[in-house]
Amino acid sequence: MSFADEELTKEKVFRDPVHNYIYVENKIILDLIDTPEFQRLRRIKQLGTTSLIFHGAEHTRFGHSLGVYEITRRICNLFQRNYPSKRPDDGLWNDNQRPVALCAALLHDIGHGPYSHTFEHIFHTNHEQITTQIITSPDTNINKILKRVSPDFPKQVASVIDHTYPNQQVVQLISSQIDADRMDYLQRDAYYTGTNYGKFDLERILRVMRPYKNGITFEISGMHAVEDYILSRFQMYLQIYFHPVSRAMEAILEHLLKRANVLYKNDQPDDSATPFMLLPFFNHSFNLKQYLALDDGVLTTYFAQWRNNSDKILSDLAARFLDRRPLKSVIYSVDTESLLPKLRDLIQTAGFNQDYYTAVNDSYNLPYDTYNPQVAKSQTQIELMQPNGDLVELSQLSTLVAAVSGKTAGDQRFFFPQEMLSRNQSIEIFEPIYEEFQHYINNNHIINHH
Amino acid sequence: MSFADEELTKEKVFRDPVHNYIYVENKIILDLIDTPEFQRLRRIKQLGTTSLIFHGAEHTRFGHSLGVYEITRRICNLFQRNYPSKRPDDGLWNDNQRPVALCAALLHDIGHGPYSHTFEHIFHTNHEQITTQIITSPDTNINKILKRVSPDFPKQVASVIDHTYPNQQVVQLISSQIDADRMDYLQRDAYYTGTNYGKFDLERILRVMRPYKNGITFEISGMHAVEDYILSRFQMYLQIYFHPVSRAMEAILEHLLKRANVLYKNDQPDDSATPFMLLPFFNHSFNLKQYLALDDGVLTTYFAQWRNNSDKILSDLAARFLDRRPLKSVIYSVDTESLLPKLRDLIQTAGFNQDYYTAVNDSYNLPYDTYNPQVAKSQTQIELMQPNGDLVELSQLSTLVAAVSGKTAGDQRFFFPQEMLSRNQSIEIFEPIYEEFQHYINNNHIINHH
Amino acid sequence: MSFADEELTKEKVFRDPVHNYIYVENKIILDLIDTPEFQRLRRIKQLGTTSLIFHGAEHTRFGHSLGVYEITRRICNLFQRNYPSKRPDDGLWNDNQRPVALCAALLHDIGHGPYSHTFEHIFHTNHEQITTQIITSPDTNINKILKRVSPDFPKQVASVIDHTYPNQQVVQLISSQIDADRMDYLQRDAYYTGTNYGKFDLERILRVMRPYKNGITFEISGMHAVEDYILSRFQMYLQIYFHPVSRAMEAILEHLLKRANVLYKNDQPDDSATPFMLLPFFNHSFNLKQYLALDDGVLTTYFAQWRNNSDKILSDLAARFLDRRPLKSVIYSVDTESLLPKLRDLIQTAGFNQDYYTAVNDSYNLPYDTYNPQVAKSQTQIELMQPNGDLVELSQLSTLVAAVSGKTAGDQRFFFPQEMLSRNQSIEIFEPIYEEFQHYINNNHIINHH
Amino acid sequence: MSFADEELTKEKVFRDPVHNYIYVENKIILDLIDTPEFQRLRRIKQLGTTSLIFHGAEHTRFGHSLGVYEITRRICNLFQRNYPSKRPDDGLWNDNQRPVALCAALLHDIGHGPYSHTFEHIFHTNHEQITTQIITSPDTNINKILKRVSPDFPKQVASVIDHTYPNQQVVQLISSQIDADRMDYLQRDAYYTGTNYGKFDLERILRVMRPYKNGITFEISGMHAVEDYILSRFQMYLQIYFHPVSRAMEAILEHLLKRANVLYKNDQPDDSATPFMLLPFFNHSFNLKQYLALDDGVLTTYFAQWRNNSDKILSDLAARFLDRRPLKSVIYSVDTESLLPKLRDLIQTAGFNQDYYTAVNDSYNLPYDTYNPQVAKSQTQIELMQPNGDLVELSQLSTLVAAVSGKTAGDQRFFFPQEMLSRNQSIEIFEPIYEEFQHYINNNHIINHH
Repeated sequence: MSFADEELTKEKVFRDPVHNYIYVENKIILDLIDTPEFQRLRRIKQLGTTSLIFHGAEHTRFGHSLGVYEITRRICNLFQRNYPSKRPDDGLWNDNQRPVALCAALLHDIGHGPYSHTFEHIFHTNHEQITTQIITSPDTNINKILKRVSPDFPKQVASVIDHTYPNQQVVQLISSQIDADRMDYLQRDAYYTGTNYGKFDLERILRVMRPYKNGITFEISGMHAVEDYILSRFQMYLQIYFHPVSRAMEAILEHLLKRANVLYKNDQPDDSATPFMLLPFFNHSFNLKQYLALDDGVLTTYFAQWRNNSDKILSDLAARFLDRRPLKSVIYSVDTESLLPKLRDLIQTAGFNQDYYTAVNDSYNLPYDTYNPQVAKSQTQIELMQPNGDLVELSQLSTLVAAVSGKTAGDQRFFFPQEMLSRNQSIEIFEPIYEEFQHYINNNHIINHH
Repeated sequence: MSFADEELTKEKVFRDPVHNYIYVENKIILDLIDTPEFQRLRRIKQLGTTSLIFHGAEHTRFGHSLGVYEITRRICNLFQRNYPSKRPDDGLWNDNQRPVALCAALLHDIGHGPYSHTFEHIFHTNHEQITTQIITSPDTNINKILKRVSPDFPKQVASVIDHTYPNQQVVQLISSQIDADRMDYLQRDAYYTGTNYGKFDLERILRVMRPYKNGITFEISGMHAVEDYILSRFQMYLQIYFHPVSRAMEAILEHLLKRANVLYKNDQPDDSATPFMLLPFFNHSFNLKQYLALDDGVLTTYFAQWRNNSDKILSDLAARFLDRRPLKSVIYSVDTESLLPKLRDLIQTAGFNQDYYTAVNDSYNLPYDTYNPQVAKSQTQIELMQPNGDLVELSQLSTLVAAVSGKTAGDQRFFFPQEMLSRNQSIEIFEPIYEEFQHYINNNHIINHH
Repeated sequence: MSFADEELTKEKVFRDPVHNYIYVENKIILDLIDTPEFQRLRRIKQLGTTSLIFHGAEHTRFGHSLGVYEITRRICNLFQRNYPSKRPDDGLWNDNQRPVALCAALLHDIGHGPYSHTFEHIFHTNHEQITTQIITSPDTNINKILKRVSPDFPKQVASVIDHTYPNQQVVQLISSQIDADRMDYLQRDAYYTGTNYGKFDLERILRVMRPYKNGITFEISGMHAVEDYILSRFQMYLQIYFHPVSRAMEAILEHLLKRANVLYKNDQPDDSATPFMLLPFFNHSFNLKQYLALDDGVLTTYFAQWRNNSDKILSDLAARFLDRRPLKSVIYSVDTESLLPKLRDLIQTAGFNQDYYTAVNDSYNLPYDTYNPQVAKSQTQIELMQPNGDLVELSQLSTLVAAVSGKTAGDQRFFFPQEMLSRNQSIEIFEPIYEEFQHYINNNHIINHH
Repeated sequence: MSFADEELTKEKVFRDPVHNYIYVENKIILDLIDTPEFQRLRRIKQLGTTSLIFHGAEHTRFGHSLGVYEITRRICNLFQRNYPSKRPDDGLWNDNQRPVALCAALLHDIGHGPYSHTFEHIFHTNHEQITTQIITSPDTNINKILKRVSPDFPKQVASVIDHTYPNQQVVQLISSQIDADRMDYLQRDAYYTGTNYGKFDLERILRVMRPYKNGITFEISGMHAVEDYILSRFQMYLQIYFHPVSRAMEAILEHLLKRANVLYKNDQPDDSATPFMLLPFFNHSFNLKQYLALDDGVLTTYFAQWRNNSDKILSDLAARFLDRRPLKSVIYSVDTESLLPKLRDLIQTAGFNQDYYTAVNDSYNLPYDTYNPQVAKSQTQIELMQPNGDLVELSQLSTLVAAVSGKTAGDQRFFFPQEMLSRNQSIEIFEPIYEEFQHYINNNHIINHH
């Protein structure tokens, strides 16, 4: 049985606020969506702690995964219609690549767990490896369905996701500077946060995209749409993804999991408050089934139990996370970095364990860069095709992109308890400490006094 | 200290995809939002199982509550500017009603728990009573903050929500045929499902709304906007809220909780799979703190554990819910209702316990009706104010509303396992039963054969 | 040379605010758009005097014509993909109908002139006949281009527009209760007026549309989208197209052209103020070239000259039109119709020639009706296709449509100079007349006193 | 009588697709809108020839003028609420500036005529001077209404528009790098063209705007919204306002008017084809009444007559404009500029008068710049207010704005008849000339061969 054999006689549609409708035309795709592994994505928020700042953005990885699939499907349709390959190696689109492209698009995030970034940091899991496992392990429903296409189809799908698949057109559809993944999440996150920044002309970009021998390029007539996409992406990073309060909530989450890890790693009691579903992760010995049982709700359920834990740090951090009481933050620079130990000491003196109540985090984004062989993991650069077929790198033609190319933006911040900024607490024993601390803070920056 | 004393020198804004920004101008409101009781609403989905059909609609009661507050705030501003009361009983707006209106708007859903409708049905909780408790119990943070306004302010706020507050303008702002609650959820649910049906001209309706002696009325010039609202609401009911698959998932949820209740009511073991946070509810003896610890994630965490339970019905229903495998349904009528016992027997014979694998559900909506003293809980009718000040009931003037007034729409459905519709299962022992069952089904209806 | 021979190697796109992009894939279509006859539609507003009330709605018949073409193109694509005919008379879509469908869609309004409705009324022109002429007359560029397809192609295109074309699928695409024409103008007029009423789910309707033996039907799964379209259309009529001030401006326009006709019909001077481009129409003897030279700007240019005309009625009406000074209006009924002569006399006594300063106009819309052989020109009813292939008429299934089916809505109005409503003009000789007039007016209605 | 005396008891609203509603609260404003001078703006397109490329953009200066008024009104409301002046010279907002601000906003474009830019170039009119005249001349209705406020009120309004009004807050509201004029036209032109580029977060910008001693500044918390505005503006210039085909149509218009000027300047016949309403402009001797009689329709009416003129250049250019047959264009640089005389000669040899069939045009935009005293008419720079009240210039804080600050973008183009690009015209006498011409063109650029 092949992919084509499983065409649905009548397509199935999913209403989607970003793409209006998502069209499923094949039973393989429908069955993949209906697996427990995929349905589980409904319980994992796309933006993690960001939803605590942009309350509209409570959407999950489920809708995003459908969206990436849908964009990929539309691109396949356009490629097949406008650039169908006629002979091997003509650099055009061979539609027998469609099944692997669609499945890789749909499944690219299947290995994500709750609050992935932070979770992975503490428990040394790796969502990319797990994605590969879910796709290739014979125990998953995903794998069984994919094998209906062919025995080695799961491996092909996994290889697209880890970039080792030979056809670079397919790889770049799913992962490049302008890929279906990014195009979906920018539009989707903009829609749900209620900001306008992430919006760009998706229909236009899809129209000017075209396959060529080494991957994907764009017709020069679409340059402005590509420019607009670059700027949208950049603005989303600065304004949404790097929001300081979101990073502050992430710091609390990280410290909370770190504290739990310390407490439970060696001592795993068996009472009503034991986080049984997390124990394998404290032990750093978990299997796929245990991983797939996790979701956002499992974590917050344990946090709710930890509220009442006898460990004061654990219970306090759990409450701060659930009740959304972020740390405060200030920007520091190379000039003021040397003050951090002093500030941490003041915080410790004020009664906060500095290991759990302070943090640093830097978030920088490079809006666009040309290919740089010096740099590890240099991104593929964006190239435009001229009327005569020649390719030109984007920043050669766009004043706007040239202006931002190679320029990073972002900041590095020091996080600490909001209590340190208290004022007028006249009977407060810690007042002198707070005052000294505040002496180093001005206009949201750490400042030197010398 | 009064409400006015706590005006913020600088308003705080929340980005909202529906209202663009939500403006908080008073520290009381900000502090209410920052309570654990209110933050908990971030973990309770607005539409429950509907998000399993409209995957975009994963928004929670948190954003909705802010939205109802914001609409109420805008109405207060318009009323204060255009219809300020000048002497007692002039039927205009007295802005000292603003604090109670804003707080009631913000807190009207504070007592909701996870999957409220179903949960209440099984465990006999009541979110309206709990709302009152959260507001008036001296143990909650909400209550403490409200008391900063005045000692009896919590009771006033609660009385708006239960409709006993003397000022009918305030009561109708929060609860009437066109109130801030409905106006927010129609717009919000439309936005998140990605359907257009719920959209109406909110700005226009707010502009033509006006206070009068007995509540809220609308200037006749806004009749078309009101018409459009009535139709939007009606279409949302038929197309979103009554979606048969959503009702099918609710049936599974209800049966799952019913089964758990049966299993745990009398026998509450103390092992790693015990749903400790739910035990008080199986016992029908819970306190407010225990109720406030619940959220969607707590339920699904226990469902995940129940997947592995030795009770086959519990584990199967838990998996069906988490993996989104709905029951199928068909419409029945007074003529075919008598066939239900026969169909239930066939289902039982095919191996499904009919108490847990079949259900009936009827969903009907009345788009609009005039006031009817015969009917218990008759809705306040909508009245329009003519240029000369006379009030006319809406359906007297609107051909469209007259056409739908008093006409209900909806259906009643019988739910059963999808397996009953199987075909071509040649070695299947149950095939004759399936065939007999299918004999009674045509075009999504139960049919008679006589 | 056939239509297929003129496929463009690269499609040409037009940015469109309603459909995002309009795709032209064939040189015939591109060349039709580039004719003087079609470009002239850029100078004829879609909504005539309505733009004087909804100032945003200044769009022309050019964009609408492209929109109807685009919707038709999308339907052809969907029909060709989902319902391709396999043998004659299988009731499915034969894609060799595409050229005639696309050209008829693009050209269906090509015969419209400036302020068509009013212009035709005074000058006895007929835009439908002229459409046929433009398409079939060998003198036009349109005709020359169409003949590149085949010698009788122009006649075929014309026959689609006048409903005599044998293939009812094509005819109903362009003209039926849900056709490409209406679907475009509802969306477009809603967009440009800035109202929400005309919005419906176009993508969904296109998806559920399907060809059958006798025309076009809709899958039953799309019923709600069809319902929503019916209601949108109805609301657009009541709120936009029948707006009383728009009808008042039309009354002025009609009287202005009537006055000019009276003045110039017999006496056509040759001086700088002579409306040379209109003379053939005063004479009721014009050729196609003269008709095609007219546009909105030609009329308003003459109106600007007539401002200074020695005929007081002509100059006053011209100024009222250009400066947007509408007549006032009130609703009358069968009961109060008998008062109109009395009111007209009062107006005449107050110094206004009643032939030029009063008018009556009734505007009624029937939102939907079933087929009625009794009624001349009864509309094709809308039919839905059930899973088993049977057709059911819409109002049999939709409570909402049943409620409005066969019910007309609208009003009849009497128009008169705003001066008649003057008050407090103490030295005004006409005051007693005004007072008497106003005695018959209450709450925007004519009232009886007996 | 003062402005305040003319408050309307009930505000009047205009439905607007960009701002939803425009609120008129004062009879002065309503009466200004109802003047012939202002209603005339309904007949002058906002974007001139751009509507020939973006067909959706047929909106007029009427809606834009209302929009600038509305934005200004909202700013006045916010300033009055949040920053009301308490004593002279406290740098806050004095609401007695509202009347002059609102009237200047509404009337800032009142002097515009049809296709202003081109018209002024040929006929040496000046819309800014005419704006002042319309406001201050005792003959206009505008002036009479403004004088109801006070005898010198018209002069004050005019002085805001020409920047000489003493209160810089009012001047900068109407004219600065982020003013009500630009904010309206960017949003409006984006809406009507159907492009997304011009959209920015207007509500946010208005919220962070604030008055200070020397004009208008922005709170630092709104930096990202200001950034986004700068980029939106820049993209609108590059993609919409500088569109090469729009510039090509403008070149035709300019040559057409130039030709008419040459023909009619000295020889003004009195026959049916004489452009009587333009004669005063050929004579460079016109009065205000004659100017106010012009609109887009008057020009195109004469163009329609000129189609049949015996002068071949006049008739050909008129047809090219009406039928939208643009010149082609290529980019040239300092290196290839020297080839222009050669190319013009070839065009002349091919039978096209080079004075009327070729043109050059450069369009460059500077997205943002800091204040530069070296530069004539240097723009006011944008400054942000920090928490402590200090002002910082935008590009000091924004990586993105710093990257584009002081960098111009755009191109210079040479325009010529499309015929010069003909191919395969085998019997064509001019073929060798065309070939030679094409030899200098590659990838839309002029190229050197040496």
